[in-house]
Amino acid sequence: MSRIYVLRLGHRISRDKRITTHVCLVARAFGANGCLIAGDFDPQVCRTVNDVCRRWGGIFECRYVENWRAFLKHWRENNGVIVHLTMYGINLPEIIDRIRSIYSEGRDILVVVGAEKVPWDLYELSDFNIAIGNQPHSEVAALAVFLDWLFKGAELNRIFPDAELRIIPQQKGKKVVRIFKKEKQVGSN
Amino acid sequence: MSRIYVLRLGHRISRDKRITTHVCLVARAFGANGCLIAGDFDPQVCRTVNDVCRRWGGIFECRYVENWRAFLKHWRENNGVIVHLTMYGINLPEIIDRIRSIYSEGRDILVVVGAEKVPWDLYELSDFNIAIGNQPHSEVAALAVFLDWLFKGAELNRIFPDAELRIIPQQKGKKVVRIFKKEKQVGSN
Repeated sequence: MSRIYVLRLGHRISRDKRITTHVCLVARAFGANGCLIAGDFDPQVCRTVNDVCRRWGGIFECRYVENWRAFLKHWRENNGVIVHLTMYGINLPEIIDRIRSIYSEGRDILVVVGAEKVPWDLYELSDFNIAIGNQPHSEVAALAVFLDWLFKGAELNRIFPDAELRIIPQQKGKKVVRIFKKEKQVGSN
Repeated sequence: MSRIYVLRLGHRISRDKRITTHVCLVARAFGANGCLIAGDFDPQVCRTVNDVCRRWGGIFECRYVENWRAFLKHWRENNGVIVHLTMYGINLPEIIDRIRSIYSEGRDILVVVGAEKVPWDLYELSDFNIAIGNQPHSEVAALAVFLDWLFKGAELNRIFPDAELRIIPQQKGKKVVRIFKKEKQVGSN
């Protein structure tokens, strides 16, 4: 089955801490398998994301990548497709069917989202440069809408296995239940 | 015609500057009429957003709100509907048709997105508490996906009038054209 990873490019600790964390959490919540971060080494982001995974479930990889160009090359050599989200690219509605068919063929997809400016060669290294509307907004929003279109909204009803916490949706207020974990029970016997 | 405004609640200058800017830019790009900010007074956010509007077009209001509870009360008294996006609410797919029909009836919609924790009474003051999937992720993503579902993707093809700049979508690279502005021409005669 195809895998989807997100590559967050150009993370700077002071400026991007929260945005990069949001990128990772969106990747997880909207059905990606992991998020890779290239830029300043900042252990706090993956710590936060891993903590969310522990409490809210699912298997999700978060880690740093030293050399993102080598990573893209390796991704391509393994028949993976590279999708760069950029306001300058082809607008999503015109290209999403093509991406969906690539995904359903079983090829892995790497979704690249940059910080403010991305290196010029990224446009060439990517198989697709895709805009989520050709207006300036947010890489967090772009990633969410891309994955939502790819999965046709099905990701919003996804169950995350091995969650400690689960929300019971409410009209008003909050209801969160703590899930009984079999593994832990077995471990304590 | 119905208007859509976004209320960003609980902005803190040091922590939220970039997230709040992303919220405002998403509001604009995804078809809202304006974004109101409650929290620390931070003129830089609206300055950035107004600068984007000047260059990329469209009419979009960005301003601070002193007393957000009074603002919600006023919104309601004017037959407006309040939608609070929260991971604890009813999941989007179950409620979007209702919101769309409210919108098409001509009622204004205020979409409230909070920072980390929101005051408890917001759940009561809102007509709808809506989750974009019941998982932790990002208010920027939540807002984008909500507006994208509301407008069924049509907002991604929206033309912003009076833009100075417009993108010509490209497979590779960037192409931006500068638009001839009639008003300026008239003004200079």
